[in-house]
Amino acid sequence: MFVTLEGMEGSGKSTLLKGLNQRFQAAGRTVTLTREPGASSIGANLRAMLLSTRSTLANETELFLFLADRAQHMTEIIRPALQAGHVVLCDRFADSTLVYQGYGRGFDRRLLATLNDVAVSGLWPDTTLILDLPPEEGLRRALQRNNTSGQSDDEGRFEAETLAFHTRIREGFLELARQHPQRCVVLDATRQPEQLLDDAWAVLCSRAAFQKQD
Amino acid sequence: MFVTLEGMEGSGKSTLLKGLNQRFQAAGRTVTLTREPGASSIGANLRAMLLSTRSTLANETELFLFLADRAQHMTEIIRPALQAGHVVLCDRFADSTLVYQGYGRGFDRRLLATLNDVAVSGLWPDTTLILDLPPEEGLRRALQRNNTSGQSDDEGRFEAETLAFHTRIREGFLELARQHPQRCVVLDATRQPEQLLDDAWAVLCSRAAFQKQD
Repeated sequence: MFVTLEGMEGSGKSTLLKGLNQRFQAAGRTVTLTREPGASSIGANLRAMLLSTRSTLANETELFLFLADRAQHMTEIIRPALQAGHVVLCDRFADSTLVYQGYGRGFDRRLLATLNDVAVSGLWPDTTLILDLPPEEGLRRALQRNNTSGQSDDEGRFEAETLAFHTRIREGFLELARQHPQRCVVLDATRQPEQLLDDAWAVLCSRAAFQKQD
Repeated sequence: MFVTLEGMEGSGKSTLLKGLNQRFQAAGRTVTLTREPGASSIGANLRAMLLSTRSTLANETELFLFLADRAQHMTEIIRPALQAGHVVLCDRFADSTLVYQGYGRGFDRRLLATLNDVAVSGLWPDTTLILDLPPEEGLRRALQRNNTSGQSDDEGRFEAETLAFHTRIREGFLELARQHPQRCVVLDATRQPEQLLDDAWAVLCSRAAFQKQD
């Protein structure tokens, strides 16, 4: 089972991933918990380049670095984990490229779909949970987190984008969910973390019930 | 004037670039001498990842890293140099991706052409000099150079490929020259370095004579 979480900063992806990890483990499953960008052996290096507010990356450079990270992540981590029978929970994946680079930066979305197909080499998630909330609320939470936890340099580059940008991102994720109704499930991320976890777990359990056992 | 040099290892690209640089400077032109991969601000980092014999990169990862490096190289170095009226001489460029990843690794060549168009964002070289020689001779020279100069770790990864691979690479460059006769000129790289320089200089001068002055 390959599950990806998508949504804007502040939507609660990290908290939800931790909760899902605990529930899968309690159910006796081995979980590989991972994320993009940055989990592959070259990823820490790429992540530093991508998320730094100091380097000035061309939009095309940024796009290709995300894709390189994804291709390596698939080969080193996701594909072997699935082959070993693990549940893979991944914080952001190919849909982030489509939405941030397509709806956000204006790259051609058919081109991006082709590029994602190269990067994932045919292996798409079984389920993508899209955490939806108004961009004002996501930005408010993200700023609050950065101010209190000192994680301010990590995702600073994307969080510095305008509200209009984040509104396009939200619309992009919702459009994507309409285009891929078999794979994508939209969750209301304004709910309390424990409620959101219950919602997500219910979705995954009901979907697992209709999959063949592995 | 934007000139790229292509050809296998050992074909004499570096020596020819130095010679051309001197002749352009003697003719009063300012030259930007550059190379791929690795000349951009993120390039040293990427080059180390790409050329290391230690890291195990998926073919798709390698492809996207080359493209990221190219996009950044265009934005930071090549485009500004051309806008400033410089002659740009570049050791390897987009054709290397097409040939090494297409003819060498079997990626779809139409896909690669699309990816290169994204990376160069519309700016192709005026002239591409393709240094042609039998792969046996190129490998012999490359091995000799590595043994005598101690540069053995730099391009070692590609030079470790088989002779069959390098034969496909040669055929790829020659096919490319047939497909782009306006841009590509094949030079006989078995000639002595000074003769090869004379040949290349004659080609560039005759082409410059038919270009409008900048």
